[in-house]
Amino acid sequence: MKNHLDVPLPDYYGQGGRLGKPAARELKESAYAHDCSQAPVLLEGISYADLAHAMMLIRQGVIPPEEGVTLLRGLLDLHDSQRNMEMDPSFGDVYNNREAALKKMIGSTAGWLHAGRPRREAVNIGYLIHVRRDLIDLMRSLITLASALADQASRHAATFMPDQTYLHHAHPTSLGHYILTYLYPIFRDLDRLKTGYLHVDMCPAGSGSVNGSRLPVDRNMLREYLGFHDMAVHTRDAMWQPDVPIEIISAVVAMMVNVNRFSEELQLWSTLEYNMVDLPDEFCRASVIMPQKKNPYPMTYIRGLTGFLLGLTASFAAVGKTHSGNPDSRTFVYAELPEAITKSAAALRLFTGIIAQLNPNTERMLELVRAGYANATDLADVLMTGFKFDYRTAHQIIGLTVRKAIETGIPGSGIEASLVRSSAVEVTGQDPDIRPEDIQPATDPAAIVNSRKTIGGANPDRLAEMIASSTARLREARDWVEQASERNTSALANLLEQARIMARLQ
Amino acid sequence: MKNHLDVPLPDYYGQGGRLGKPAARELKESAYAHDCSQAPVLLEGISYADLAHAMMLIRQGVIPPEEGVTLLRGLLDLHDSQRNMEMDPSFGDVYNNREAALKKMIGSTAGWLHAGRPRREAVNIGYLIHVRRDLIDLMRSLITLASALADQASRHAATFMPDQTYLHHAHPTSLGHYILTYLYPIFRDLDRLKTGYLHVDMCPAGSGSVNGSRLPVDRNMLREYLGFHDMAVHTRDAMWQPDVPIEIISAVVAMMVNVNRFSEELQLWSTLEYNMVDLPDEFCRASVIMPQKKNPYPMTYIRGLTGFLLGLTASFAAVGKTHSGNPDSRTFVYAELPEAITKSAAALRLFTGIIAQLNPNTERMLELVRAGYANATDLADVLMTGFKFDYRTAHQIIGLTVRKAIETGIPGSGIEASLVRSSAVEVTGQDPDIRPEDIQPATDPAAIVNSRKTIGGANPDRLAEMIASSTARLREARDWVEQASERNTSALANLLEQARIMARLQ
Amino acid sequence: MKNHLDVPLPDYYGQGGRLGKPAARELKESAYAHDCSQAPVLLEGISYADLAHAMMLIRQGVIPPEEGVTLLRGLLDLHDSQRNMEMDPSFGDVYNNREAALKKMIGSTAGWLHAGRPRREAVNIGYLIHVRRDLIDLMRSLITLASALADQASRHAATFMPDQTYLHHAHPTSLGHYILTYLYPIFRDLDRLKTGYLHVDMCPAGSGSVNGSRLPVDRNMLREYLGFHDMAVHTRDAMWQPDVPIEIISAVVAMMVNVNRFSEELQLWSTLEYNMVDLPDEFCRASVIMPQKKNPYPMTYIRGLTGFLLGLTASFAAVGKTHSGNPDSRTFVYAELPEAITKSAAALRLFTGIIAQLNPNTERMLELVRAGYANATDLADVLMTGFKFDYRTAHQIIGLTVRKAIETGIPGSGIEASLVRSSAVEVTGQDPDIRPEDIQPATDPAAIVNSRKTIGGANPDRLAEMIASSTARLREARDWVEQASERNTSALANLLEQARIMARLQ
Amino acid sequence: MKNHLDVPLPDYYGQGGRLGKPAARELKESAYAHDCSQAPVLLEGISYADLAHAMMLIRQGVIPPEEGVTLLRGLLDLHDSQRNMEMDPSFGDVYNNREAALKKMIGSTAGWLHAGRPRREAVNIGYLIHVRRDLIDLMRSLITLASALADQASRHAATFMPDQTYLHHAHPTSLGHYILTYLYPIFRDLDRLKTGYLHVDMCPAGSGSVNGSRLPVDRNMLREYLGFHDMAVHTRDAMWQPDVPIEIISAVVAMMVNVNRFSEELQLWSTLEYNMVDLPDEFCRASVIMPQKKNPYPMTYIRGLTGFLLGLTASFAAVGKTHSGNPDSRTFVYAELPEAITKSAAALRLFTGIIAQLNPNTERMLELVRAGYANATDLADVLMTGFKFDYRTAHQIIGLTVRKAIETGIPGSGIEASLVRSSAVEVTGQDPDIRPEDIQPATDPAAIVNSRKTIGGANPDRLAEMIASSTARLREARDWVEQASERNTSALANLLEQARIMARLQ
Repeated sequence: MKNHLDVPLPDYYGQGGRLGKPAARELKESAYAHDCSQAPVLLEGISYADLAHAMMLIRQGVIPPEEGVTLLRGLLDLHDSQRNMEMDPSFGDVYNNREAALKKMIGSTAGWLHAGRPRREAVNIGYLIHVRRDLIDLMRSLITLASALADQASRHAATFMPDQTYLHHAHPTSLGHYILTYLYPIFRDLDRLKTGYLHVDMCPAGSGSVNGSRLPVDRNMLREYLGFHDMAVHTRDAMWQPDVPIEIISAVVAMMVNVNRFSEELQLWSTLEYNMVDLPDEFCRASVIMPQKKNPYPMTYIRGLTGFLLGLTASFAAVGKTHSGNPDSRTFVYAELPEAITKSAAALRLFTGIIAQLNPNTERMLELVRAGYANATDLADVLMTGFKFDYRTAHQIIGLTVRKAIETGIPGSGIEASLVRSSAVEVTGQDPDIRPEDIQPATDPAAIVNSRKTIGGANPDRLAEMIASSTARLREARDWVEQASERNTSALANLLEQARIMARLQ
Repeated sequence: MKNHLDVPLPDYYGQGGRLGKPAARELKESAYAHDCSQAPVLLEGISYADLAHAMMLIRQGVIPPEEGVTLLRGLLDLHDSQRNMEMDPSFGDVYNNREAALKKMIGSTAGWLHAGRPRREAVNIGYLIHVRRDLIDLMRSLITLASALADQASRHAATFMPDQTYLHHAHPTSLGHYILTYLYPIFRDLDRLKTGYLHVDMCPAGSGSVNGSRLPVDRNMLREYLGFHDMAVHTRDAMWQPDVPIEIISAVVAMMVNVNRFSEELQLWSTLEYNMVDLPDEFCRASVIMPQKKNPYPMTYIRGLTGFLLGLTASFAAVGKTHSGNPDSRTFVYAELPEAITKSAAALRLFTGIIAQLNPNTERMLELVRAGYANATDLADVLMTGFKFDYRTAHQIIGLTVRKAIETGIPGSGIEASLVRSSAVEVTGQDPDIRPEDIQPATDPAAIVNSRKTIGGANPDRLAEMIASSTARLREARDWVEQASERNTSALANLLEQARIMARLQ
Repeated sequence: MKNHLDVPLPDYYGQGGRLGKPAARELKESAYAHDCSQAPVLLEGISYADLAHAMMLIRQGVIPPEEGVTLLRGLLDLHDSQRNMEMDPSFGDVYNNREAALKKMIGSTAGWLHAGRPRREAVNIGYLIHVRRDLIDLMRSLITLASALADQASRHAATFMPDQTYLHHAHPTSLGHYILTYLYPIFRDLDRLKTGYLHVDMCPAGSGSVNGSRLPVDRNMLREYLGFHDMAVHTRDAMWQPDVPIEIISAVVAMMVNVNRFSEELQLWSTLEYNMVDLPDEFCRASVIMPQKKNPYPMTYIRGLTGFLLGLTASFAAVGKTHSGNPDSRTFVYAELPEAITKSAAALRLFTGIIAQLNPNTERMLELVRAGYANATDLADVLMTGFKFDYRTAHQIIGLTVRKAIETGIPGSGIEASLVRSSAVEVTGQDPDIRPEDIQPATDPAAIVNSRKTIGGANPDRLAEMIASSTARLREARDWVEQASERNTSALANLLEQARIMARLQ
Repeated sequence: MKNHLDVPLPDYYGQGGRLGKPAARELKESAYAHDCSQAPVLLEGISYADLAHAMMLIRQGVIPPEEGVTLLRGLLDLHDSQRNMEMDPSFGDVYNNREAALKKMIGSTAGWLHAGRPRREAVNIGYLIHVRRDLIDLMRSLITLASALADQASRHAATFMPDQTYLHHAHPTSLGHYILTYLYPIFRDLDRLKTGYLHVDMCPAGSGSVNGSRLPVDRNMLREYLGFHDMAVHTRDAMWQPDVPIEIISAVVAMMVNVNRFSEELQLWSTLEYNMVDLPDEFCRASVIMPQKKNPYPMTYIRGLTGFLLGLTASFAAVGKTHSGNPDSRTFVYAELPEAITKSAAALRLFTGIIAQLNPNTERMLELVRAGYANATDLADVLMTGFKFDYRTAHQIIGLTVRKAIETGIPGSGIEASLVRSSAVEVTGQDPDIRPEDIQPATDPAAIVNSRKTIGGANPDRLAEMIASSTARLREARDWVEQASERNTSALANLLEQARIMARLQ
């Protein structure tokens, strides 16, 4: 297992060479400890990067054949055994820890691995492999949530409820139409996540440390081994790209802001005052002290996560705002961005669980829409179209009508023609001949919802159109995601197989 | 100019109707004053929105023909005269101020304008029309910067300088290759800006206030009048979309972070210590007290702007993180986002001015690359390939060589074979037969740069390929932008012309 | 009015000296335009700084007596006339614009002003004078809000309502106790604002440009003229202090987050579903389309402002994160921080207006507390103390009781001993002898609130203690603020008077 | 070990009571997994909170004596054994996991612990105990850094170097004066950290869940047991306080921004171009590929950490911006804030290590100050004071002089009287009689530094004064910190001892 020259170099990379001393305690307890904590994210992907790099160098004749076999066997051993590797900050970061482990296994032959490649490239690839998988998982979870929203929307085309602005009743609507409010942004989320994914799925391998290498590095071979759809061409750009983490985190935040909105409202709807939904017991948490509580803990979690993540957009921009060539644009992203994505994906699944079991209190919803004055716009429309009042005058008349109705305790559904008429007199000095049948269509929630026939409106046919087109778009999105996933997965499987063949293990 | 019923409604919308009183002083001095400050952004676009809305309602028979003519004439008058309109917070926001002005001009006929449409829709359209124009301008400026970078890169394929990481010499490179570091991210910027532009350029017109309208609103007619490429279909989604401002600001921030990086370095290069560039006098600022100063003020401005803007990603996410239906997700975006875009576009032009006149001190650059040890990797590569040392051992030998060279004051370009040889003995115990001709190719900067033949590397042919392909991509991007611009501009011109015809003014 | 040597220097500072050319268009349209927009914040304070600097240099014999009189007269003229000065970016920033105006008035004698002082010092002082006044105004408004909260709390010791966590009923409480939730953080706000104020109110005058001056600058004289309570001693620290804007903005944000919380809840309480308060008409805004709407616009504004400002904490830290000596840590703070403070102060006054007129629907509050199960903890306490169940068992019994009560439509106030007893049997297998009189004290809201006798609890005596101590603390805070205000105001008045005397105008 | 009634309640709190089912998988994999990850921060402090709560309830007669002994023994066992406890999200959060473990140990007697106290109170106390200890450690590390800065400053009163603005030479200064730039902000840091510490060190114990308790809870006893210096009086305020995490993180960020500044500059000084310091080997990191590199990794780490943390100010404000009563303002702070503090403290120690070993290249510093034009202000001062030119004219003359000197390759220290004279003629048309001895004092760096006699300036006496007063202030600060630390530590030790006595174990 040894090569012809087995020099007992110190374990700490560079010590005895450029560096006279090992790392200071303060360095190990801060920067190196931080770096080591990235192991769960980086270990697997660096392993793939190392294998691909070694195989390419062997095929290009840089690493001699015999050393190549030894090196690949060591790397394959490490690939299998590293999962439980303890990180020791004395060596430095995750890359250095793998290197120390490999050197322990195969001696100085391990040293061939570093030819033509900086640590940054290996670590970057490890990170990108993790992030692209995380993004696949996130997009899958997002599409599943979107489907759950579409399903519920299709069930509730005739479940009437008050639409709101400022949390105050706006118009009668259907729960189905309301729910789609939260489906449409998902298409924009997917646009952004796909754009971002394509930036992540660009191969930096073979860049040399900044401007290429004098060795015969084959970048296309590396790209294919690692399953990237394209290459990050410029070698110096490939190394840093501080814009991509900003892009990904802000796409994630934008997505969570949308989910947060519905989440906020479901919490509200679950209060005694609203009483519009009852959240499933298995998604609630008991209070330790208050026996009556069934706390909507998922809503709190989603809101907290969204709030926390939104600061990271500033964080990732701030670490990128520095000279090029400084690795601080990456060392506080390697673990933090994947964690943001995976926590968000889990939160999406949590929310999907709630949506899938959504149990609206349809009677209460109808009661509320009748109790309020959500039909006022329709009353004003009727005045305008039937009696030729300009809209602001009609609005004034109905505004006054509602004010009077509230004072006398009449609900919106109980407003009578005579009240409107007397308000018209008060506002305009004229007495229009408003009859009960004139305002009747403006008092029934179902009739009002049906009247919303504009494209994108609450009318059941419009709703059905939107659900159908959304379902088709989601199907396409799912296909795209699965193809991207398959490309990555099969490339890495092939990489391992080829490595075993070159290592004469297969 | 009066309609049949001219009721003297109060100027403050809703007063005497739903509201018993005018606005409180505290409300006017805070929220309404804030809203009024958005006039420079919103006035023009709201005017287009109002014209389109009125014309559609006339064509659909909602507004009677006579009133329609009066209304359109008023709106056209206002379109021309509003530029210097004083905003009065007593009326409320910009929309209310326009409404008060219109009412003053044409009396209660002005009231027809509000049929079937909330203020939010008009304001939103005003904002979107401004933002899409701002984005066009931004993309134009960005493409111009990219072209200036490509031009300079093509001039400096053989201007040698030290590439760096951590600001410490890394490898000899060419200024041309270095400059492209800042061109490549621009392609990702353009991907993001285009994706964002397409989300901004979606028409919300005709949404009713939340779920459509009982009036025969024609959304396609509105979309065409206003020149949007597509419709924001779901009426409730169309109104809020808190994700889009997050998307735009983070694309802008990612772009500025890139520009900031080169900007930081140019400031450094302009110091006495580096002395690699001399910034043009017209881009510098004098100190009031220190006569010798030629301060690189543009760099400070770009860095300050980038730093400031990056917090807005968090701001825009935080204002969007609320229940749907709350307008706070927009009221702190209407003016703030356009300002962020236009300031960034001006900063890009500032930076382009500097790049276009970039005057590198090529002698100093060469002196520096020779004085340092940027050729060390090539020395190690030579040891590895020529003498079969594994790379880590070769690295150790050269690391020690450099340490000795520094101690004895020998620059990288002056390292001799004998020094390498003695280090090899020290590290490995063996004495490789290293001759001057072995290491010669690893000491000349030009030879080293030429050796970087990997795709994306610093070799002049690789550089020329990158410049050629970048130039082609920039040409495509410019065409896309100009077509989008033309679509908007001609639609709005047509809108005005049609309005004049319907108003019987033409 | 001319001095002995009136050289016609170019208007653009440095042109013809160190700079060969005037400013480039791109520089004027970006950085200088930005700088000029700071005039409303900076003009007045720079004027004071200039006067103090000139007077000190005259008294120290640096500026000759005759020139001194000319200079002071020019500065006093400018002080009075500058309010409507147009800023011209061709000159540079606000400082340069003042200098150009002064030179126009008194020729090259204006040039004496720049002795021993960089622009940064003058601008800094201008900024600090503005910010300390803004902070005084903010603290005043905050104390007034606190007093309004205390007043309302004292009125509602016996207004019963459901306290909440997760927006779900928690315990019966009094509105008075609930309101104090938002008073107590104000004491921490005041701690922070005072600490920050004392850092702002430190005089940097006389620092030279970085490390002092060879001129006989008297820093104490300057400090007294300008009314600062202390000196920023180290001359280089005095110039930058990037930490102080971070400190101030985060104190403002922390304060607004608190106000935002109550604001969110008042919006909720004003919904039809809650119906616990009716917001005054003059604090609401009408919808343009929906006649029934009385939108709680102040809540939206407060929430939007809070959300927007919170990103500025990241912005101000990001602009400070750079080498020392770079002015970007200040150029994006000069106008942005004062605007943040003054908008927040106006928002506090807006909120105070609402609090002062708060009109709770006390019947509805009582109805809600009776309809829910907020008394469940008291029931469990009674079981524990009276029947020696451990608390978790008691909690389980009452939890089950509530579940049954909901299923059968019994409100919390209607739970009977028998129901508790049957649940106890179900949970424990034992049958405790629970009688109606045992649970009676746990069903009456007033009795429950009275039982909260722990320090800081809802019992009326505890409430009265808190109000009394809070009132005393607010009185102290107000005294502190007024003294600080008086110190600044009288110093600046004195400065003007002394200047007129030295200029022989008085 | 069992109490009289040992009911086999389900492990999942509330199941079988208010909740019909155990937690859903999606809830466990998201929110509960997140909560469980807080164990390293919370476990120890919750243990103290539980002990204090149990002891108080026993002394107040709420928990019967026998059960009390059992409970305390269980809690003491748990205190010792919990360090390696595995968290199981099936139970919920850290509190629930402790409860499950306790129940396993002592059966249903464990249920007495929950009397009169919500989970939030226990968790809050656990968090506060951790944070106050973290803050003590941070303040200690900060004071140590400050002392190291003061030490270095005192060594370098006569080490001359160019002071800078915009990274361009400003004035000759001493390294000692320059270093103090970074000491003075630490006094403001300490002000903020102390204010924040006093807000953290307020005891919420005994609040009941929101408004007190009907049980005879003794809040003073709890406060003393837990070693808090004061009580958070209002029970509802005590529970949430979303402002305090904002306060702490922004104080930490402000501190790190300061450290970052010097750190940026030291990296620059370590470049080949500056060559002003050589960083100790044990604080550098080797490149894997480039043998010559001695990368200043600590600077990268500090810059990255600062950039990352600054986004958390926005995060913590965003999670606090919600209704009161929602725990999202805390669940994303419990672990995140302590981590921010402890990482910052480690980074301070890292930086202190570098400062303590700072090895400036004093010859190079002097060479640089002589090579540049940092003496230009002094030349202009000399012209003004000696020849009665107004300062702007003097500035113009010297500006032109420098421009000519650069063109002809004359360094600042080599500028001769004749060159100044010819520039004066060019600018003013007059020929002042400037002799070599006139400008001599303005060319020697030592003389220039000595001339900076203004308070806070670079003159050695001024420097010595600042160091003396700083040292005294640091001594006071250290005393304050040690007293606060001692108060906490001894209280908790006493708590354990009392618990053992009450448990009849001692």
